Amino acid sequence: MRARYMEVDAQGVVFNGWYLTYFDEAMTAFLAARGASYATLAAAGVDVQLVHVEVDWTAGLRYAEDFTVAVSTARVGRTSFALDFQTRRDGEATCSARIVYVVMAIDGSGKLAAGGSGKRPIPALLAAALGDPAPLRAR
Amino acid sequence: MRARYMEVDAQGVVFNGWYLTYFDEAMTAFLAARGASYATLAAAGVDVQLVHVEVDWTAGLRYAEDFTVAVSTARVGRTSFALDFQTRRDGEATCSARIVYVVMAIDGSGKLAAGGSGKRPIPALLAAALGDPAPLRAR
Amino acid sequence: MRARYMEVDAQGVVFNGWYLTYFDEAMTAFLAARGASYATLAAAGVDVQLVHVEVDWTAGLRYAEDFTVAVSTARVGRTSFALDFQTRRDGEATCSARIVYVVMAIDGSGKLAAGGSGKRPIPALLAAALGDPAPLRAR
Amino acid sequence: MRARYMEVDAQGVVFNGWYLTYFDEAMTAFLAARGASYATLAAAGVDVQLVHVEVDWTAGLRYAEDFTVAVSTARVGRTSFALDFQTRRDGEATCSARIVYVVMAIDGSGKLAAGGSGKRPIPALLAAALGDPAPLRAR
Repeated sequence: MRARYMEVDAQGVVFNGWYLTYFDEAMTAFLAARGASYATLAAAGVDVQLVHVEVDWTAGLRYAEDFTVAVSTARVGRTSFALDFQTRRDGEATCSARIVYVVMAIDGSGKLAAGGSGKRPIPALLAAALGDPAPLRAR
Repeated sequence: MRARYMEVDAQGVVFNGWYLTYFDEAMTAFLAARGASYATLAAAGVDVQLVHVEVDWTAGLRYAEDFTVAVSTARVGRTSFALDFQTRRDGEATCSARIVYVVMAIDGSGKLAAGGSGKRPIPALLAAALGDPAPLRAR
Repeated sequence: MRARYMEVDAQGVVFNGWYLTYFDEAMTAFLAARGASYATLAAAGVDVQLVHVEVDWTAGLRYAEDFTVAVSTARVGRTSFALDFQTRRDGEATCSARIVYVVMAIDGSGKLAAGGSGKRPIPALLAAALGDPAPLRAR
Repeated sequence: MRARYMEVDAQGVVFNGWYLTYFDEAMTAFLAARGASYATLAAAGVDVQLVHVEVDWTAGLRYAEDFTVAVSTARVGRTSFALDFQTRRDGEATCSARIVYVVMAIDGSGKLAAGGSGKRPIPALLAAALGDPAPLRAR
């Protein structure tokens, strides 16, 4: 990815909220590359919803800098799982995160059931995509 | 605050990254109300930079829903401090967060010094604004 | 409204794309105040979709500046209408826009029909909300 | 480019404001590819500021759809110039725009001079990058 001009704030670095966009794109690409694309999950009547985030920054990204986002499975439960992320600039980590997702029922339009009652067990295709945990962070 | 239409994603709830925008606005309003506005800090040659975030969601905000953001000091260190946040809809918490900030030197334009070497002790006016810790979260 | 810190880019002024968010919020508030809220339109099976925008800036908004957004009906057609907008800081216009919207059928989830074939005549409640044109711009 | 999940709103298509982000990235890439990168312009003490936008949509982009952004010089004046843009999905235009930019003096931090008095003639390296006009739109 490349830091967009509008993502850089008056401090001269990417505003923190944009990292959650980077991780969202990285998460869907990670799952899709392993056979659990958004469309495949939606066809199975589920989507994943983020419920917990921990992020640590050690450096800021500046305008037009290129970076990669490493993704790895950190934990797999019954209805939830965690992924670890690292943004890397020239191979060096500038930010790392652990994000917990819950599998949720969606309606035909892709929307979450109102009231949040729709927790679902991790489907087999998603479990296969997640594979064995290999965390990038201690917690 | 009120959830904007463009902040709601295809799941029908506010996309997670926007909460960091809400907390950013709430943080600056909290400090300004206690005498440490962005302009006052900038006049003292410093700004605060976010280095750690933990966020937990229990419900999603939907389009045009009104909510408040509670802010409280969670910890005060030598060069860093933590604030706790809660988004509340009809008085009920839907999301809580702890965010750690570091005091950093800025140049006359408001930009952080390149290389991130600019850590500074918490100035007296900021310590006074933060007051005694009264956390909203256990950690 | 107030310019958010994250909306200000490295030039020190609000990034141009955010104005379309401001106008979107102003449009829905304008229609809601006149009896055609998003929910009322959705209950009638329609929503409005933006198809044309013209925006002119004469000054930039800076961080934490307060401004208002004036809205006025510019044109009312059979399936489309235009609104004019002005952002005003201390009563002085800093930006003006004309935006053309088309009335579109939506499904029960609020989504536009795929393929964009869903143009609909302006419903009576929306025509009443728009009232007589009183443009803020020549075109 | 690829439409990000968070850019898609509750209507199921990319929110209109994001197109100005797409055009911003396309503009800087277009100029950089022709020798007038942001850094090169900044070294010459100038940046470009958007003052006028016209955008027409004929179709919406949906989540994860790939698209390209065509850019072409539309007009070159003394202190301003216009570029035309088209977003294309599978080779078909879904949106076109004309955007007018003014050359502005910036300070060493990249910020525009306060008050907007900083209009500058188009520097030779930028004129060379723009080349001869070849509009994509009638106006």
